[in-house]
Amino acid sequence: MVEFDPTRLHGSLRAPVLGSLSFLNEVMGRFPEAISFAPGAPHPETLPGPDLQRYTDRYLAHLREQGTSAERARRTLYEYGPSRGLINDVVSEALWRDHRIGCAPEELVITVGAQEAMLLVLRALFASADDLLAVANPCFVGITGAARLLDIDVVPVDETAQGIDLDRLARECRAARRQGRAIRALYVAPDFSNPGGARMSLDCRRRLLDLAEQEDFQVLEDNAYGFTAGAGTELPPLKALDTRCRVIHIGTFAKVAFPGARVGYVVADQRVRSEGGGTRPLAAELAALKTMVTVNTSPLAQAVIAGMLLEHGGSLVELSRRKAVLYQRNLTALTEALDHELGGDAAPPGIRWNRPEGGFFVRVHLPVRADTRLLEVSAAKYGVLWTPMDQFYLDGAGDTQMRLSCSYLDRGQIEEGVRRLAAFLTKEIRG
Amino acid sequence: MVEFDPTRLHGSLRAPVLGSLSFLNEVMGRFPEAISFAPGAPHPETLPGPDLQRYTDRYLAHLREQGTSAERARRTLYEYGPSRGLINDVVSEALWRDHRIGCAPEELVITVGAQEAMLLVLRALFASADDLLAVANPCFVGITGAARLLDIDVVPVDETAQGIDLDRLARECRAARRQGRAIRALYVAPDFSNPGGARMSLDCRRRLLDLAEQEDFQVLEDNAYGFTAGAGTELPPLKALDTRCRVIHIGTFAKVAFPGARVGYVVADQRVRSEGGGTRPLAAELAALKTMVTVNTSPLAQAVIAGMLLEHGGSLVELSRRKAVLYQRNLTALTEALDHELGGDAAPPGIRWNRPEGGFFVRVHLPVRADTRLLEVSAAKYGVLWTPMDQFYLDGAGDTQMRLSCSYLDRGQIEEGVRRLAAFLTKEIRG
Repeated sequence: MVEFDPTRLHGSLRAPVLGSLSFLNEVMGRFPEAISFAPGAPHPETLPGPDLQRYTDRYLAHLREQGTSAERARRTLYEYGPSRGLINDVVSEALWRDHRIGCAPEELVITVGAQEAMLLVLRALFASADDLLAVANPCFVGITGAARLLDIDVVPVDETAQGIDLDRLARECRAARRQGRAIRALYVAPDFSNPGGARMSLDCRRRLLDLAEQEDFQVLEDNAYGFTAGAGTELPPLKALDTRCRVIHIGTFAKVAFPGARVGYVVADQRVRSEGGGTRPLAAELAALKTMVTVNTSPLAQAVIAGMLLEHGGSLVELSRRKAVLYQRNLTALTEALDHELGGDAAPPGIRWNRPEGGFFVRVHLPVRADTRLLEVSAAKYGVLWTPMDQFYLDGAGDTQMRLSCSYLDRGQIEEGVRRLAAFLTKEIRG
Repeated sequence: MVEFDPTRLHGSLRAPVLGSLSFLNEVMGRFPEAISFAPGAPHPETLPGPDLQRYTDRYLAHLREQGTSAERARRTLYEYGPSRGLINDVVSEALWRDHRIGCAPEELVITVGAQEAMLLVLRALFASADDLLAVANPCFVGITGAARLLDIDVVPVDETAQGIDLDRLARECRAARRQGRAIRALYVAPDFSNPGGARMSLDCRRRLLDLAEQEDFQVLEDNAYGFTAGAGTELPPLKALDTRCRVIHIGTFAKVAFPGARVGYVVADQRVRSEGGGTRPLAAELAALKTMVTVNTSPLAQAVIAGMLLEHGGSLVELSRRKAVLYQRNLTALTEALDHELGGDAAPPGIRWNRPEGGFFVRVHLPVRADTRLLEVSAAKYGVLWTPMDQFYLDGAGDTQMRLSCSYLDRGQIEEGVRRLAAFLTKEIRG
């Protein structure tokens, strides 16, 4: 009987973050009646209705408009498809229409969610063990997980209210060079990061692109939450400002359409020299790598997503308009409830929170450790759940912060949840 | 403007096999009217009808029978799901019913096709650069691609008519040990490999499992083509014979259902010791790794597959029965056409082919190099396409072989295709 010592398995499996996430899932399972600020999942109200065929039919009509025969179009949903994706034309048009990101269909790869896009980009870019990945800190666990899977060393750079600490990033570039290493790429979510919540200022965006050129690194832009900006307040994505091919842009349909499709995309218009002397887009290399990971993204799932997009005039903004309003409303409800319940003199001192202008997440700072022990008390005695923030930090910081997600709850649940949270903090933290 | 020198990208991108595959795709694109023995894709006749909702409805009914509320069941298709999968119960029951593979749902992970399963298993098992992957040679490019992506060194071991050269495998284990390295796992497709076509004998299966125990390696069993065995001729999968947890069993729904779902699975019931002193199945570790690759397999796609399976009494054999008959018929048509067109005295000497009892593929040996130059002539002058075999060999062999796939064609196309092939070989090879 084989019984593995865990040390005989790859190191990526021994990281504490997985333990932390599985503890959270386990607590949620034990307290199903608790109000949970933990999941960053889209609100159930935003999920599509039961008639999915409507969307695949819409996409099939699009294929026929392009000259594909009805029988050939139908097969397209069921057969293997090109590794780079099937719906690249629809997505590329939407990116131009909505964000002024100009890319040809062949400069895009449709991926199994943003997660696969991150893995592919890291695998392609990181050729040497001396290459380093800089990440905004605190940081989405998906990118640090992908880096761990590929044994890529990560350098945290603080997120700031304006975006990212560019001076620190420049210092890290120089420090790496002195050690014979190099910052190969920076991962950042300029529009309402998970979990930090910051939005990068326009000035910081421009200076970041200058620094990338100067220090020769790529920027991996994750745009999962950009759609939640209040109407008229949007800032251009880094990729729309990128005149020097420094930015690789990663998006997902998990929030603007639905997560169960597992469809994301990556724009990679950087040129790679071929043996023959010509060039091809980095996206072609990513598609080649994808044959070794998932072969291709489910054409059926892609067709559903493209159909939803086409039903909304081929616009990501139109597709997400109602959802953006819902999440803005929930975010306001959450910060107002915190103000109401914990903003007065009766609340314990040392508790404060940030006020993001978009995204799903608010961070609450406590005067004590926000660890799994405290979470257990919060769940068992007060019926409210949240996410400890230490798992998002790479430098040991964040251990006195909790992350509250507003995305999965209704206004009433948010208010009741914050009441429970206030009772919990008032009683347990004052002792 | 960034322009990458390819040497600044990861080595996995510089492998010749990708060039070879993209050349094949390019040739197929240029000669759309040619009869192509290249694609190993399922026959269009085997693809489902347009009414997919029938299958998701069937799966939703199953969830409700298990006590899930209608609203909760509906959401399940659209939300994120557990990394280990949603339909594990249905698949685990089918594996017992059809193959006498006993595994609990938590010992299974539902993956984005067999390809992701291979990547996850390799990532979990290969902890050290001294670990080696042995593969049956010639070998499916998916496993060697995954190994390349993870910088895992591969050792080819010849496929034989009885399965795999066990003496050679034992010698490779000892040779590795002398160098301070270890064969950590063997990849093999015992039931009609792609492209070799061999079926491993029952005796070879048993002796392989003994050797795995003796030399302490795991066996990755790929069962993509087992269903094509003629009724009554099936042999037990390695996993059904595995009393010592040496086998990790990988399957796919691409051929028995349809490829566009991108749903596969892996059985990993090996135990991993936990810090607390207990154990958990290797599948749990694979699911943790999956959060870093694709998060979870599309619940929507999983629901379609489970619905198809449930409609066939929860049996993989019932689901694939008509398909197995079709592929058996096609394989017979292909070898009969080869006998008819190239078996007589008029055919050029030195041409021979194997006679697999199942699977999609026949190999033809030529007295000359079967390279891309020859393929170009075959396509342009004779309107017939095939796959050069050298890309499937790790030791430089196979350069005089072509692979013919029978899966995507009808009987008439197979016969006409072989006529063209015979004309091509007779004229071009005799000069």
